[in-house]
Amino acid sequence: MGKSVLVINGPNLNLLGKREPEIYGRTTLSDIERMCKNCASNLGFELAFMQSNHEGEILDAIHNAVDTHDGIVINAGAFTHTSVALMDALKGVGLPCVEVHLSNTFAREDFRHHSYISPVAIGVICGFGAKSYTLALEALANYFEQQK
Amino acid sequence: MGKSVLVINGPNLNLLGKREPEIYGRTTLSDIERMCKNCASNLGFELAFMQSNHEGEILDAIHNAVDTHDGIVINAGAFTHTSVALMDALKGVGLPCVEVHLSNTFAREDFRHHSYISPVAIGVICGFGAKSYTLALEALANYFEQQK
Amino acid sequence: MGKSVLVINGPNLNLLGKREPEIYGRTTLSDIERMCKNCASNLGFELAFMQSNHEGEILDAIHNAVDTHDGIVINAGAFTHTSVALMDALKGVGLPCVEVHLSNTFAREDFRHHSYISPVAIGVICGFGAKSYTLALEALANYFEQQK
Amino acid sequence: MGKSVLVINGPNLNLLGKREPEIYGRTTLSDIERMCKNCASNLGFELAFMQSNHEGEILDAIHNAVDTHDGIVINAGAFTHTSVALMDALKGVGLPCVEVHLSNTFAREDFRHHSYISPVAIGVICGFGAKSYTLALEALANYFEQQK
Amino acid sequence: MGKSVLVINGPNLNLLGKREPEIYGRTTLSDIERMCKNCASNLGFELAFMQSNHEGEILDAIHNAVDTHDGIVINAGAFTHTSVALMDALKGVGLPCVEVHLSNTFAREDFRHHSYISPVAIGVICGFGAKSYTLALEALANYFEQQK
Amino acid sequence: MGKSVLVINGPNLNLLGKREPEIYGRTTLSDIERMCKNCASNLGFELAFMQSNHEGEILDAIHNAVDTHDGIVINAGAFTHTSVALMDALKGVGLPCVEVHLSNTFAREDFRHHSYISPVAIGVICGFGAKSYTLALEALANYFEQQK
Amino acid sequence: MGKSVLVINGPNLNLLGKREPEIYGRTTLSDIERMCKNCASNLGFELAFMQSNHEGEILDAIHNAVDTHDGIVINAGAFTHTSVALMDALKGVGLPCVEVHLSNTFAREDFRHHSYISPVAIGVICGFGAKSYTLALEALANYFEQQK
Amino acid sequence: MGKSVLVINGPNLNLLGKREPEIYGRTTLSDIERMCKNCASNLGFELAFMQSNHEGEILDAIHNAVDTHDGIVINAGAFTHTSVALMDALKGVGLPCVEVHLSNTFAREDFRHHSYISPVAIGVICGFGAKSYTLALEALANYFEQQK
Amino acid sequence: MGKSVLVINGPNLNLLGKREPEIYGRTTLSDIERMCKNCASNLGFELAFMQSNHEGEILDAIHNAVDTHDGIVINAGAFTHTSVALMDALKGVGLPCVEVHLSNTFAREDFRHHSYISPVAIGVICGFGAKSYTLALEALANYFEQQK
Amino acid sequence: MGKSVLVINGPNLNLLGKREPEIYGRTTLSDIERMCKNCASNLGFELAFMQSNHEGEILDAIHNAVDTHDGIVINAGAFTHTSVALMDALKGVGLPCVEVHLSNTFAREDFRHHSYISPVAIGVICGFGAKSYTLALEALANYFEQQK
Amino acid sequence: MGKSVLVINGPNLNLLGKREPEIYGRTTLSDIERMCKNCASNLGFELAFMQSNHEGEILDAIHNAVDTHDGIVINAGAFTHTSVALMDALKGVGLPCVEVHLSNTFAREDFRHHSYISPVAIGVICGFGAKSYTLALEALANYFEQQK
Amino acid sequence: MGKSVLVINGPNLNLLGKREPEIYGRTTLSDIERMCKNCASNLGFELAFMQSNHEGEILDAIHNAVDTHDGIVINAGAFTHTSVALMDALKGVGLPCVEVHLSNTFAREDFRHHSYISPVAIGVICGFGAKSYTLALEALANYFEQQK
Repeated sequence: MGKSVLVINGPNLNLLGKREPEIYGRTTLSDIERMCKNCASNLGFELAFMQSNHEGEILDAIHNAVDTHDGIVINAGAFTHTSVALMDALKGVGLPCVEVHLSNTFAREDFRHHSYISPVAIGVICGFGAKSYTLALEALANYFEQQK
Repeated sequence: MGKSVLVINGPNLNLLGKREPEIYGRTTLSDIERMCKNCASNLGFELAFMQSNHEGEILDAIHNAVDTHDGIVINAGAFTHTSVALMDALKGVGLPCVEVHLSNTFAREDFRHHSYISPVAIGVICGFGAKSYTLALEALANYFEQQK
Repeated sequence: MGKSVLVINGPNLNLLGKREPEIYGRTTLSDIERMCKNCASNLGFELAFMQSNHEGEILDAIHNAVDTHDGIVINAGAFTHTSVALMDALKGVGLPCVEVHLSNTFAREDFRHHSYISPVAIGVICGFGAKSYTLALEALANYFEQQK
Repeated sequence: MGKSVLVINGPNLNLLGKREPEIYGRTTLSDIERMCKNCASNLGFELAFMQSNHEGEILDAIHNAVDTHDGIVINAGAFTHTSVALMDALKGVGLPCVEVHLSNTFAREDFRHHSYISPVAIGVICGFGAKSYTLALEALANYFEQQK
Repeated sequence: MGKSVLVINGPNLNLLGKREPEIYGRTTLSDIERMCKNCASNLGFELAFMQSNHEGEILDAIHNAVDTHDGIVINAGAFTHTSVALMDALKGVGLPCVEVHLSNTFAREDFRHHSYISPVAIGVICGFGAKSYTLALEALANYFEQQK
Repeated sequence: MGKSVLVINGPNLNLLGKREPEIYGRTTLSDIERMCKNCASNLGFELAFMQSNHEGEILDAIHNAVDTHDGIVINAGAFTHTSVALMDALKGVGLPCVEVHLSNTFAREDFRHHSYISPVAIGVICGFGAKSYTLALEALANYFEQQK
Repeated sequence: MGKSVLVINGPNLNLLGKREPEIYGRTTLSDIERMCKNCASNLGFELAFMQSNHEGEILDAIHNAVDTHDGIVINAGAFTHTSVALMDALKGVGLPCVEVHLSNTFAREDFRHHSYISPVAIGVICGFGAKSYTLALEALANYFEQQK
Repeated sequence: MGKSVLVINGPNLNLLGKREPEIYGRTTLSDIERMCKNCASNLGFELAFMQSNHEGEILDAIHNAVDTHDGIVINAGAFTHTSVALMDALKGVGLPCVEVHLSNTFAREDFRHHSYISPVAIGVICGFGAKSYTLALEALANYFEQQK
Repeated sequence: MGKSVLVINGPNLNLLGKREPEIYGRTTLSDIERMCKNCASNLGFELAFMQSNHEGEILDAIHNAVDTHDGIVINAGAFTHTSVALMDALKGVGLPCVEVHLSNTFAREDFRHHSYISPVAIGVICGFGAKSYTLALEALANYFEQQK
Repeated sequence: MGKSVLVINGPNLNLLGKREPEIYGRTTLSDIERMCKNCASNLGFELAFMQSNHEGEILDAIHNAVDTHDGIVINAGAFTHTSVALMDALKGVGLPCVEVHLSNTFAREDFRHHSYISPVAIGVICGFGAKSYTLALEALANYFEQQK
Repeated sequence: MGKSVLVINGPNLNLLGKREPEIYGRTTLSDIERMCKNCASNLGFELAFMQSNHEGEILDAIHNAVDTHDGIVINAGAFTHTSVALMDALKGVGLPCVEVHLSNTFAREDFRHHSYISPVAIGVICGFGAKSYTLALEALANYFEQQK
Repeated sequence: MGKSVLVINGPNLNLLGKREPEIYGRTTLSDIERMCKNCASNLGFELAFMQSNHEGEILDAIHNAVDTHDGIVINAGAFTHTSVALMDALKGVGLPCVEVHLSNTFAREDFRHHSYISPVAIGVICGFGAKSYTLALEALANYFEQQK
C-alpha cells in the first residue's frame, strides 16, 4: 500500500506570493500544494499539506503524524532557526523527515545559516523555490525504496 | 480619510501594573490603551489595540493588518529578542512599524539588547513608560505626513 | 489550610514513554502525574498538572496561577533554552518555582546547558527521571515551611 | 519657572543635508535647531543647541550643563559607539538625558548597534529623522511632569 | 545489607554559617551533617561526611570510596567550576554521584554556571540550602532502588 | 539544443564505496557517474563527470566550463569548508551551480556546517547519498526551464 | 587645472624620528612633508600637509577639505583603529581617500589589524615608511586620471 | 638634582567630589593635587599636575613632558579603555609611567577591565582613592632609585 | 592596639631570585619578608608572612586569619588566574585585602590579565617588584585609618 | 647589475577582465603583465610573471625564486586568506615581498580582511587595480635602494 | 613478513636546513630520510619517504598507500592546520598514522595549535627535530606489536 | 656520569588499569614504572618515579628536582589543562621537560586540547599508552646528547 507524507509549512508561508517576491517569487502556497499533490500522486503517495503560524500547532501535527503518516517534508520558516521544540518533536516521533526551504538560506543573513532541524532530518534541500518541495518528495520516495 | 493604526502588545504585558513595578510602573495595559486612543483621536487616527501571549496570534494579527491598517506600533515584549518569525511577518506585510518598550531595554540584561524587530522597523522608542506608545503614534503620524 | 501547587510540562513531554526511551525511560506523563498526586497528598498539597505544546498556553497558565496556586514546578522542555517570555512570566507572577528535568541536561548538547528559567527559580533538580518531580515537590514544601 | 534643555550634537552632524542624504535626508542642522526651538517654546522650555566635532568640548558642555540646564537631548553621532568618557560625563552630572539618532542605527552596520550612552539615558529614540529630536523633547517634558 | 554513601564538601564550606549568610544562610556544616545522618538513617544508609579545602584530599577520598561506599553526594564548592581532576576522579571510580549546591548557582556570576562535575553525575540539585543534601540522598536511594 | 552539465567531485570521493561506508554507503563513484548519465539522458542533458584531489585541477575545470557547459553540479568534499578559491571560481564563471553532498553535513562535525560554496550556488542538496546528485540535475533542469 | 591634495597625519606622528625608530625609522615628519611636496610637484598637484593630536581638528580639516581639495591621503595613526567619527567624516565628504601607514600594521599587535578607515578609502598602502606617502600620491594621480 | 613628575588626569576627573561619591568619595581633584604636592615635596620631586577632557591636550602634554619631566603618573579615566593614541604617546616618549585609578576598576563593568595603558606602564595601582596617587609617586621614587 | 596583617605568597614564589630574573629580579622571598617586616614595624603593624605551593594551605590560612589578623596582602602567583576557591575564601572571611604582583601582569600573556582576586580586593598593586608589597602595606594602613 | 623580481598571481586571476568587472575592472592579466614589464624596465629590473590556480606550483615557484630573483610581488588571490603554506614559503625563502590586491579587500566580505601573507611581507598595497602592481614594484625598488 | 611504512612530508619541508634554522635546525630532509631508513631497517620495516608541496599529490599518495603500506608517519607542515581533505583521506584509508612535527607547534603562533590530523592519528610527537620521526617509527612498531 | 630523570604523574593516574580501560588500557602505573626503569637503565639514566593527586606536592617535587635531576617527563593528567602554577614551576626551574599522555588528548573533549605545559616543554608525545613514556625518555636522551 502507498506511503503517506505530511508536508508542514511554518510561519508566514501563507504570505507566499505577496511577501518579498524578489526572494520567494510569485508562487502562492496553494500553487505549491497543487504541485506537491501532483508529484505525490506520480510517486504513489498520499499527501497531507498544512501551514500554521503557531509553533504549538506544528508540534501537535508532528505528534499526530506518527499514526497517520510515513514521512515528513518540512519548511519550518523562521522556526527553523529558533525552535528546539521542533527538533525534539521530529526526533521524538522518529519519522523520516526532509528539510526544505524556498530560498537559499545560506545566501541570506547569518542567523539563517543555523537550523535546529537539519541534524534530525535525513537531508536538506534549499534554494529551488517550489521545486524544493517536489525534490524532497522524490528524496523521501528514494529513502522508502532503500529501507525496503 | 484617516489612517488606522494597530497597536500590538506581546507576552506578559497583560500583567502590567502587577509585574515588577520598579521596572514598569503601576500603569495597567488598559491605561495605556486609553492613552493611545486619546492620542490617536487627536492625531486623526483609528486605533486598534491587542495583546497576546501567543506568538502565532500576533503573527496572524500582523498578516490581517495588511487590509485593515496603515501602520503598526509594536511592543513585542520578550518575543523582541527571540522571534525571527515576527521579524519576517513585519517585513512580509510591509506596513510601516514603530518598535516601543516601556523600559530602557539597554539598561537591562545583555540578552535584551538585541531586537529582531528593530532592523525592520522605521525606528525605535524605549524607556519612557506609557509615553513610549504615544510618542510612537506621533512618529507614525509624522511618517505618514512625509510619505504624502 | 493546605498549599496548592501547579506542575507545568512543556512541549513534547506528552510523548513521554514513546520518545527516546534511552534518555527519558518508559514512564509516561500519566505515570508522573499519578506519582506527583500521591506525593502532594503526602505533603498536604493540592496539585494541578498540565502539559502543553503551546508556549502561549503555558504563559496563560502561569498568569492564572497567581490567584489559585502557591508554587510552581516546571519542566519547560525545549522552551527552557529558548523562551525569554517564560522567564518574564515566572518573574512577573512572583510565585516560588522549582525547575525540573527528567534527564541530566548538562550531559547532553551544549545548547541544553543554558536555561532562561534557572535564574528566576528557587532551584533546579535534573537527571532523576520522574523522581525529579517529587523531589521538587518536597523542595517546595521545605521552602513553604521556611517562609512561615 | 520653565525648564531649560541642552541639545547636544556630536561629530559630523554639521555636515547634515550634504552627507549621505539617502540615510539622513536633506534637512540641515539649522533646520533641526529651528524645529527644536519651536517645539521647546510650545513645551515652555528654554533650549540651547550645540554641535562639536571635539569630544572634549562636548564633555565640557555636559559638565557646565549642571548649573544651567535641567535635561539633555544628545545625538552623539559616532561617539555613541566609542566614547566611555561621554557615558561617564552623563552619569557624573546626573541630568536626565534622552539619546536620539536621525537614522535607525539598528538597521546599519553591527558596530552601530552598541551605544555607551543608552545605559545612562532615560530612553532612546531613533529612526525618525529630525522628528526624533522633538519627540525627545516631549519625552523629557513628560519626564519632568512625572518627577513633580 | 544497607548502602553506604559518602558526602563530600569542597573548599570554604567549613565557613558555612559565617560566610555570606545572605547567600548561604546561617546553617553550619555540622547542622548539615546532622540532617544528612538523620535522613540517611531513615533511608537505611550508612553515611560518611567530609570537608576539605585541599583538592588532593578530595581526590584521594573519591579513590578510596570505591571499596567502602556505594554512592557519592558532592558539593564541590568552587572546585565545581575549575577542577577537571575531580571530573576525572568521579568518572574513574564509576560510583553513582549526585551534585548539590546550597545556592542556585545559575542565579550568580556567569563563571558559576559551568560545572565539570555535572556531565559525570547522575543529576544535579541546587538552590535549596541544606535541603539540597537530603534531596540528593533521596535521589540516590531512588537510583539504587531502580538498579536492583 | 540540449544543455550540458559538468559534475565535479572533490577530494577523496574516489574512495567512495571503500571509505567509511556507515556514512557514505557502498556505492562507488562509477555507480554515481552511471546514475547521473542516465538521469541526464532522461532530462536531455549532455553530462561530463570528473573527480580530482587537486584543488587547482578543479579550478581549471570550472574555468574551462564557461565555454563548454551550461551548469555545474559540485560535491566539493572537504574543499567545501576551506576553499575560498572555489567560491571565487564559481562566482567568477557565473554558471548556475548546485551544491551536493552524499551525507547530511549538518549532522556531522561543526566545521562541516560552513560552506564557502553555498552562498554562490543556486541551492544545496545534501544527505540523500547518490540520489543527491540526480535531484541536483533535476533542480538544474527546472532552473534552465525557468530562465527561458 | 591641477588637483589639490590634503595629507593628514594623526596623533603622535609629530614624534616621528624620535619615537620607536626600530619601527618607524629616523625620518621626521618634516622630511616626509618635503618628500610629499616634491612628489606632488612632479605629479602636478597642489599639496597641503597637516598633523594633529586632536581628533576634532582632523574632523574639521576633513570637512573643510570639500571646498579646497580633490583628494586626501591619511595616516590616522592610532585613530585608525578607534575612530568611527573619522570613518563617517571621510564617507560624508566623499573625497577620494588613500589610507597610508609607515609600518606594516599587520605585523604588529592584533588591535592594529582593524581599520575603520579602510572600508571608506579607495585603497591602502602600508609598510614602506615615508615611501608609503608618495606611493599614495601616485595612486591618487592614477585615480584622478581614470575618473576623467 | 631632584626629579620632576607630571601627574595627568583624564576626562571627568574635574567632577571629582561631585560625581558618584559612592564610588569615588568626596575628595576633590584640588585635594588630590595638594596631597600629591606634599608627597612629592617629601620625596624631593618637582610635581606638575594637570587635568583635561581633551584627549589631544593630554597627548600634547605627554609629548612636551619629554624635555621637562622624568616620569609620569596617569589616571586616564575613561580614555584608559579606549585610547590607543595614549598608549602610543606614552610608549613613544619613553618616560617611566605609573597608571593609577581611584576605584578598583576590576570590580566594575567588564569594559573597564581592559587598559591600553597598562602594557606600556611600569605598573598599576588602583582602588585606594586619592592614596593611589601618592603610592604611585613612591613607586616612581623607588624606580628612579633602582635606575641609578 | 596595633593591627596585624597576614602576607600570603602563592605557588612558585619560593623560587624567587632563582626564577626568570629578567622578570622578577634577584630579590629572594626572604628579602621581601624582611622589607615587609621593616615597613610593618614603621606602620605599627604586626606582620605574619607565609608561602605555600598548596592551594588548600592558603585557603586554610585565610580562614584562620579571621581571628588573628586585621588585613591581608596577597600575591597569589599563578592561583590568581585559576582559583575561584581563593576568591570565595577572601570574600567569605571578609578581611580587607590588597592584591600584589611583582611583575606587571598586564604586560605578559593574555591569561595573566584576568584575576579572580581583584573583584574581592580593595585594590591592586603590580609591577614594582618587592616594592609592590610595602606599597600594599601602606595602602592597608591608609584603609584602616579611613575606617576609624 | 639589475635586480630581478618575480610577480606571482594566484587562483582565478587568469579570469581577469571576464570575472566580476564591477569589482576588478576590464583589464586582463596580460595587460597587467605588460604594465609590470614596462614599469620594471623603467626601474631597471628584470621581471618574471606567473599565474597558477595550483597552490603547489606557487610554492614551488617561491622556492625556486631564491636562486633567480631578488624580490617578490604577490597577489595570492583567495589563497591570501587560507594558505599557511604560502606564509611559510615566503618566510622560508626570506626574499623581500610586497602583497598586492586589485580590489580593496577591506571593503569586501569579513573573511577577506585577514591575510596570512601580510605578516611576512614588507608591506601591503590594495585597492588600485592594476596600478597596485606597479606601485609595488616601486616600493620594492625603494626597498632595494635603502638596503644598499 | 616485515611491515611497510610511508613517511609523508608536506609543504616547504624541502626547504629544511635552509629555512628558519633557529626553529628547524640545520638538518636537511635527506638527512631525515637517511635517519628514518636506518631506524626502519633496525625495526624490520620497509620505508618509503616522500615530500610534496601539492596537497593533491599527498592525498593521492595516501590513497595509494592502502595497497602498499601498513602505516603512515606524517609531517603535514602547514597543511596540518588547514586541510580537512588530509583528515578525510587518512580517516578514509584507515591505516594507522602517527603525526610528527620538528618544532613544538604549541610554542608557536596560535593558529599552529590546532591540527586537523591529530583526531584521526594514533598519537602525536612534536618538538624533537629529526628525532620526532624515528620516535614515530618506534611508536608504530609498538602499535603493530600490540595489534598482533 | 649518568643523567637522572624525574617522571611525574598527576591526579588520578594511580587509578590506571581500573579507570576507563577503553581509553587507558589495563596497564597499571606500576607496570609503567617498571617499563620506565628498564628503559632508563638501557639509556644509562637514573630514574625517579612519582605520582600525586596534590598539585602542591607536584610543584614541590619540581622545585626539588633542580638539585637532583637533569630532566623531567611529566604526565600531568587533568592538571595539564588547568594549572598555570605547573607551567610556572617548570619554566622556573628550567629543566628540560617532555610532556606525555597515555591517550590522544586531541581525540577527546575540547577542553583537553589545550595544555599549559606544552609551551614550556621541549616537546609533546601522546596517544601511545605506556609507550609514550619510554619514547619520552629516548627523546630526553637525544636532547642531552645534542646539548653536549
